Amino acid sequence: MAATHEFDPMGGPAAPMGSAHGPSGRGTVPPKPPGTVYLVGAGPGDPGLLTLRGAELLSLAPAGAEVIDVGKRPGDATRSQEAVNKLLVERALQGKLVVRLKGGDPFVFGRGGEEALACTEAGVPFEVVPGVSAAIAAPAYAGVPVTQRDLAASFAVVTASRAGGTNPDLGRVATAVDTLVLLMAAGRLRQVCEALLAAGRPGDEPALVVQWAATPRQRSLLGTLSTLPDLAADEGIGPPATLVVGQVASLAKHLGWFNNSPPI
Amino acid sequence: MAATHEFDPMGGPAAPMGSAHGPSGRGTVPPKPPGTVYLVGAGPGDPGLLTLRGAELLSLAPAGAEVIDVGKRPGDATRSQEAVNKLLVERALQGKLVVRLKGGDPFVFGRGGEEALACTEAGVPFEVVPGVSAAIAAPAYAGVPVTQRDLAASFAVVTASRAGGTNPDLGRVATAVDTLVLLMAAGRLRQVCEALLAAGRPGDEPALVVQWAATPRQRSLLGTLSTLPDLAADEGIGPPATLVVGQVASLAKHLGWFNNSPPI
Repeated sequence: MAATHEFDPMGGPAAPMGSAHGPSGRGTVPPKPPGTVYLVGAGPGDPGLLTLRGAELLSLAPAGAEVIDVGKRPGDATRSQEAVNKLLVERALQGKLVVRLKGGDPFVFGRGGEEALACTEAGVPFEVVPGVSAAIAAPAYAGVPVTQRDLAASFAVVTASRAGGTNPDLGRVATAVDTLVLLMAAGRLRQVCEALLAAGRPGDEPALVVQWAATPRQRSLLGTLSTLPDLAADEGIGPPATLVVGQVASLAKHLGWFNNSPPI
Repeated sequence: MAATHEFDPMGGPAAPMGSAHGPSGRGTVPPKPPGTVYLVGAGPGDPGLLTLRGAELLSLAPAGAEVIDVGKRPGDATRSQEAVNKLLVERALQGKLVVRLKGGDPFVFGRGGEEALACTEAGVPFEVVPGVSAAIAAPAYAGVPVTQRDLAASFAVVTASRAGGTNPDLGRVATAVDTLVLLMAAGRLRQVCEALLAAGRPGDEPALVVQWAATPRQRSLLGTLSTLPDLAADEGIGPPATLVVGQVASLAKHLGWFNNSPPI
C-alpha cells in the first residue's frame, strides 16, 4: 500500500532538475513552479475506503507515470525514511506532482508529518489527504466500535512495537482510557497483554485481535486479556494484526458484519 | 451532515410494511428479504474525504429517495437516538436500503454502535462504512499530525462534553498519552485546559484549537495550555471546534497547508 506515484503535471517527460531551477537554483529563467507532494491515506485495506480526493489524485497520473514502491517491511532497512523524504522533495522540485500513497492515515503512525516537514524545509507545497485509519477501521470491520454509550467514552491508540524495538510505555496508558487500540500487535501480543494486566487492567476484560482487517482474509479472535495470547498462538495469528482491549470488544459477538465472520 | 437516505432497492415505490412481512410478520407469502442499513461515515467536512464506498451507496439512491434529516443539534432533544434507531430498522424492514450518513466516522462518538445493535436485534443486516474521523483529520487540516517521531507515540481521543452534561474524567487520561484530542471543545475550553493543568500537564505545552475544520471557514489558534483559553475567547472561537494538546500542536506553525491559513 505504500507507493509513490510521480508524474509531470503537463503530461510531458520529466524536466531535468537543472532546467527548472538552473544549476545554482537561481537561473535567470524564472523557475518553473515546483510540483506538489500529496500525502494520501489509502485506508486500511478495503479499496472502497479510499477517499474521493485520493482517487482523484491517483486518476490524474497518466499512463507511464513513475511508480516507486517505498514500502518498508519488518527488518527491511534498505530505504530509510530520510531517503523517502529526499525522493519526494527531489521529484517535486523537478516540477512533478507526487502522490505519496500510504496505508491508513498519513498522520497516524504513518510518518507523514516527517514527510510534510521535509517539504516545508525544501519550499515544496504539499497537501494532506487524510485516510480512514486502521486504528478505528480494523476494530470496526471486526464489529467493534471504539466508543459506545455506557461502555466507552474514550480511546487511545499506541503501537505495540516501536521502530527500534523498544517497549512502549504501556503502563502509563493502560488504565487511562476505556478502549485501547494497539497497532502492530501480532509479534508482541503476549507481552502487551501481560503489561496491561500488570498495570491494572482486569484479566477478564474482553480483548480482540483482528488480522488482515478489511481484506478478504480478515479473521478475528475474541477472548480476554488473560486468554487471548494462548488463543492467538493456537490460531497462528501473525502480522498484520490490531489488538483492541475494553468492554467494547465483546460487541464483536453481536456486530460482526464483514465477510459474515464473527470472531472465533 | 447527519442524514438518512432511504430507498427501495428496486427503484419502485416503497412497499408497505404489511406486504413484506404480513400483518403478523409471519404471512404465508415468503417475506421479502429485509433491506440493509448502511452506517456511512461522511468524513470531517471536506466532501473530498467521503470514501468511494460511501459515494457509491449515495449514488444508488434514485431521484425521489426519501431524505430525512435526523441531525441532532445542541439542546435539540426532538429526535432521540432511540427514535433514530427505530426509524432505521422500520425502513429496512420495509425492504428499503437505508444509508445512514454521519459526520466523521460512525464508530467514533457517532453512536453507530447503538444503531448497529438495533439492527442486529431486529434481524436487519447492516454494513459499516468507516469514514475519516474528525478526531484525526481536524488536527491534520490545521497542520498537526497526532503522532510524530520523537514528539508523540500515542494519542487519546475524548469528548470535552458528554451527552447529559457531566464532566468527563480528564484527570485519568491527562498525562497518559503524548497527544490529547478533545472533541466538542468549544463550550468548555477553559474548564478542559484547567483540568489538564490540574492533572499535571505543563502550562507551557502547545495547544491548538481548530474551528470549522476541513471547511472553507476553517480557522485555528495556537497557544499553550495556559494561554489558549483567553486567546480563544478573544477570537470568539465557537462550535464546532477540536482541541489538540501536545508537542505536536507546535508543528502547525510549519505544516499549515489548508486554505493557506497558518494558525493565528
